[in-house]
Formats: sequence, C-alpha cells, structure tokens
Amino acid sequence: MRATFMYKAGDVRVENAPDPVIEHPTDAVVRIVRSCVCGSDLHPYHTMPASEGPAPMGHEFLGIVEEVGSEVSGFTRGDLVVSPFAFADNTCEFCREGLHTSCPNGGFFAVGGIGGAQTEAVRVPQAQGTLVKLPADVDAALLPSLLTLADVYGTGHHAAHQARVRPGDTVTVIGDGAVGLLAVLSAKQLGAERIILMGRHRDRTDLGRFFGATDVVPERGEEGIAKVRELTGGHGSRAVLEAVGHLPAYQMAVGAVRPGGVISRVGVPQYENAPIGFGSLFGPNVTLTGGPAPVRAYIEQLLPAVLDGTVEPGRVFDRTVSLEEVPEGYRAMDQREALKVMVTP
Amino acid sequence: MRATFMYKAGDVRVENAPDPVIEHPTDAVVRIVRSCVCGSDLHPYHTMPASEGPAPMGHEFLGIVEEVGSEVSGFTRGDLVVSPFAFADNTCEFCREGLHTSCPNGGFFAVGGIGGAQTEAVRVPQAQGTLVKLPADVDAALLPSLLTLADVYGTGHHAAHQARVRPGDTVTVIGDGAVGLLAVLSAKQLGAERIILMGRHRDRTDLGRFFGATDVVPERGEEGIAKVRELTGGHGSRAVLEAVGHLPAYQMAVGAVRPGGVISRVGVPQYENAPIGFGSLFGPNVTLTGGPAPVRAYIEQLLPAVLDGTVEPGRVFDRTVSLEEVPEGYRAMDQREALKVMVTP
Repeated sequence: MRATFMYKAGDVRVENAPDPVIEHPTDAVVRIVRSCVCGSDLHPYHTMPASEGPAPMGHEFLGIVEEVGSEVSGFTRGDLVVSPFAFADNTCEFCREGLHTSCPNGGFFAVGGIGGAQTEAVRVPQAQGTLVKLPADVDAALLPSLLTLADVYGTGHHAAHQARVRPGDTVTVIGDGAVGLLAVLSAKQLGAERIILMGRHRDRTDLGRFFGATDVVPERGEEGIAKVRELTGGHGSRAVLEAVGHLPAYQMAVGAVRPGGVISRVGVPQYENAPIGFGSLFGPNVTLTGGPAPVRAYIEQLLPAVLDGTVEPGRVFDRTVSLEEVPEGYRAMDQREALKVMVTP
Repeated sequence: MRATFMYKAGDVRVENAPDPVIEHPTDAVVRIVRSCVCGSDLHPYHTMPASEGPAPMGHEFLGIVEEVGSEVSGFTRGDLVVSPFAFADNTCEFCREGLHTSCPNGGFFAVGGIGGAQTEAVRVPQAQGTLVKLPADVDAALLPSLLTLADVYGTGHHAAHQARVRPGDTVTVIGDGAVGLLAVLSAKQLGAERIILMGRHRDRTDLGRFFGATDVVPERGEEGIAKVRELTGGHGSRAVLEAVGHLPAYQMAVGAVRPGGVISRVGVPQYENAPIGFGSLFGPNVTLTGGPAPVRAYIEQLLPAVLDGTVEPGRVFDRTVSLEEVPEGYRAMDQREALKVMVTP
C-alpha cells in the first residue's frame, strides 16, 4: 500500500509500505476512508531532525473495518468507524474515568511503531475499545464533520470541558487553527455567552464567528492581552483556551486570564519550562489544566449533533487532496493557504 | 508602641514605632492579642537584601478592636476579632466569588505601607469586610486554634479545596510545616481516605498522623516519588497539596501526582519558571491550581469546629514568645527547633 512518511523537517513523502496485518487478537485492520493533516503535524514539519525519520504520519481517520482479531467483538468487516487519535482499551480505571490518553494499554497512532493514518490502511490496536461504529447509511456530506471527532473537535471540546465552561461564561480562545475554532464551537455548546477569538486570519476568524465567537482580537502579545482585558471589564477572561502550543501563546493566556480563572491548554506545548510563579499563575490563583484530549471519551456525546446537522465542525476542512498529494497538503497548511487538509485515499 | 522589623536576611529587630491611627473611614485599629511567625516569613529571613529593609513583619493576628472609622459598622471597641492575612472589602465581584486575595480594594498586611502584626497594634484597612468577630467569652485555651484561622488553617484548607478533595480521595501533602499539617487536617475534613504526608521531622509527622495522615514518607526527590507511587498502586496520588514553595517540592508534586490528577500549591513559590510541558503536566493531563489563600472566604465555615473543639489546628503552635523575643522565634523556626511560634504582646 501507499503511506506517508516524514523524513525530516519539510520533507514528506508518500511511499510503498507493507500492508498492515492483525498482530494481536485485540487488533483490527481498517481501510482508510478519510484522513487529514493535523496542526500538530506541522511541529515536526518545522523541526524534525533527519535522525528521527522516516516517521509514519497522520492520526485522524474514518475507515471501513477490513479484518478483526479474535478478541474483538462488536465489529465486522464493512463497518464504518471513526477512531480517536489515541487508542485505548476503554475498560481500565483511567478509561473509565474518561482519561483514555493515560490508558496503560493505549498509545498514539504514528508513534512508537504504530502506523500513521495518512495511508491506505492502518492496524488499530485495542480495536474494541478504540473504534466507534457509525451508521452504515451516513450521508457522505457528513464525512468531514465525522472526521473531526477523531481529534480536532474532541480536542476543542476537551479544552472547554477542562476549563469547566458553563452557561454565561466568558471564554477567550487563543489560536484560529482547526482546534481553536472547534474550541469556540465547544464553548458555545457549553453555554458560553462571550467568546473572544484571538486570531489574525480573516477567513478563519470569520468561521470562528460562525461557530460562535462574539469578538475577534487580531492583536498579539501585550497588545492582544490589553484588548482582551478591555473587552472583559479590565479583569481578563474567566477561561482561556490555548490551542497553539508555542510559549508566546501561553504567555498571552497568562496575561488574558482573570484572577481565579482557568487556562486550559490543548495545543501541544513546544516548550517545557514556563512561568508559573507568583507573578503569573500563583498570585492571582489561576488554574492551569489541559493535555492531550481523551477524544474517545467524547465521541458518543458529540456524535448526535453532528449526525443531525446541528453542528458542522467539518467546515474546518477547506481543502481536499489525494493520498499522493499529501506533501502538498503539508505545504499548503504550513503556508496558511489551507486551514485543514482532508485526505482521500 | 513596639513592632517587629526585618532589616535584612537573618536580622529581625523589635523597635519603637508610631502607634497606628485611623487613616481612612474604612479603617479600624486593633490591639494585638496573639500573633505569630509564619513559614513564609522565613523566605525573607533567608534571602532579603538590606536594600529592602527595614520591613514590618507578621500578618496573622487575633486582636481587640480599639477604634473604628466612621464607615465601619458592626464592630465596636472591645470586640475580639480574627483577621485574615489579606484585607479585602468583602463586597466586590472577586470577594463575592470567594477570591478575597484579588480584591481591588484589598492588600496584605506588612506589605506596601501596611503595618505588620508582630507588634502591639495594627491598622486594619477595609475593616468591615476584613475582620470576623469572635464570641466575647471564648475560652483562652482556644486562642491558638482561632489564630490559625488568620492564615495557616485557611491556607491548608485552600490547598484541599482547590484540589477538590472529596470523600474517598487519595491525597499527598508535601511539607510538614504548619500549612502542610493543616492541609492534612483539611483533606481529612473533606473526606480523604488515604492521606500521605511527605515530611522528615518525626514530631511534626506525628502531629500529621494526629490530624489524619495515614502514611508518612520521609524520603525526598526521586526516592520520595517512588515511595508515593508504591503506596498508590503505581499510578500516583489523585491530589497533591504542595505546602513548601521551593522548586524541588514542585518537582516532587509532578512526580507523585496521578494522571488526570491535581497539584494544588499554597507554599509561596520561590521560583518563577518550572516544567509544565508534555513531560510534566501536559502529557498526563495534570491540573495545577492554588495561590495565596482567600482565607476570609473560609473563616465562617471553619470556625464552628474550632469553637466546639472538634478540630485543634492550634496544635501547630509548639512555642510561645513575647513580642520582645520575636527574633528568637524566627531563629527557633529557622533552626527547626519550633514548628510554629506564637507571639503574645
């Protein structure tokens, strides 16, 4: 089959690779129907040394079950499924608490010897716990929105959920990428009244307004912080959802959050050390939360409104490429020509 | 009157100072009945440059109202009162949310021109919002426990409250100072089932066991982390209450906390930057919370069990000195000869 590998920063190739096979009785093999390029794929696209390549790429997909291991029940060949970007057994104490990303039997696609999803087919470990079956007769027009359940919609929801967004809340979202925009949508669904979107790409922030943003702040840094404070009566935003992952975004979050408020991070941090002392988090009793989203915990909850068209998270896809064109998809996202690129096999 | 000043690290003096007077109609003047030395007073005792001195010291007190300003109602001369270490109007939007430490009309004793409490009398700004009246006929034996409501008990409670400690919970407390020990008591009051106290001073950890600790871990660093993980089935502690403030204590908290758990800090951080990236907080979805305790928000709630003797937080005081002996009190706490030193005028 054909599969995507990153050789080093800026160097993405589609190549021949062995077809995936059942390796454990808990596996399934799934043929990809739709996959996509993630904002987090751009981090290695900027920085990956050649010594770490070639690395399989992609962790979001819809697919058709092709084969299941002997210990997988509830799925048969031909089922349409969505997979979270992290596989998990869905039975351990962490999964039962909704923290599938910490499942001791779990892991991430395209990491640690598990294949990527920007490919024709993928082996899914812990398939029974990981996969969620979709209606067989689903309208093809819904596929983009269903695909967002694999990562970006669940991740945006996680940001809002961890920040305990509640009706009437004031929420600031940092980042107008797909996750940031779907954090806007999620904050709106949880009842936020005021949603300030910090982003500077007009087409994206317009989509943010469609999803529920009430204000857009294109300024960054101190200027952006001042604007958010001005919009929130001088005190800052009760919740700040940080969907970027770079240190300046964290610093903006610290500046924009209200005393006693919450910073909820879902952008994968590209830093390890950052200010958390008296002058940043401690003095104003600010809570810092977030992490990789346990998307599996949210799929059933978010699915109905996608299926009945109440929400259209799939609007974040503004370009579609074939599998052979995946390198062009990376380039387009990196150049901000595309917000999020969907891949058809 | 006589009052305590720190001239520089290690140099504490009791000197003559002007008697406090009403400066604003919202002030009261309170004559000190009991004050004390705080673990946080030891931070400047270790590091304060001479250029920052002389600084008034002390922020915890019980007292008798001597005079009130024209806008203070509900208090009269002779009332016995307890004061939180932070004064606040108790009417603003932050105070109404229970975040008195962020009151725009508030501030801290012994900071920014406000007198300290290791003295004979103190001016209390925002007296009506700040002070809490105690029963006139209170048993003198209860004074030590009542004094803890000014800071250390409320601060220990804040740590547990911010960590949302709940019945059946597993909680680890880092630090066997007065705040750590009262965090143990608070976790117990909130229903924690397993309370692991990290501390190496046997007399203190014994008091911790009296307050509710089920396990004591004297080891520090990686060894201490391993011990907590061993005691918690390998996964770590759902909540970690950090009552020290030094970076190694934070690092222990990161190592000892369970994925999806909470680190709640009340030790005043003696650092600004610390690890919060994928390898520390983000990857395991750990929440970081805490800050200076809005003690005022908790006094009424914690008072009844103190008055009826259900709890005895005043047991943290193991030495009493006169005002003139305050420098000796600092020395004894610094040398770990005393856990917490009470000051009588």
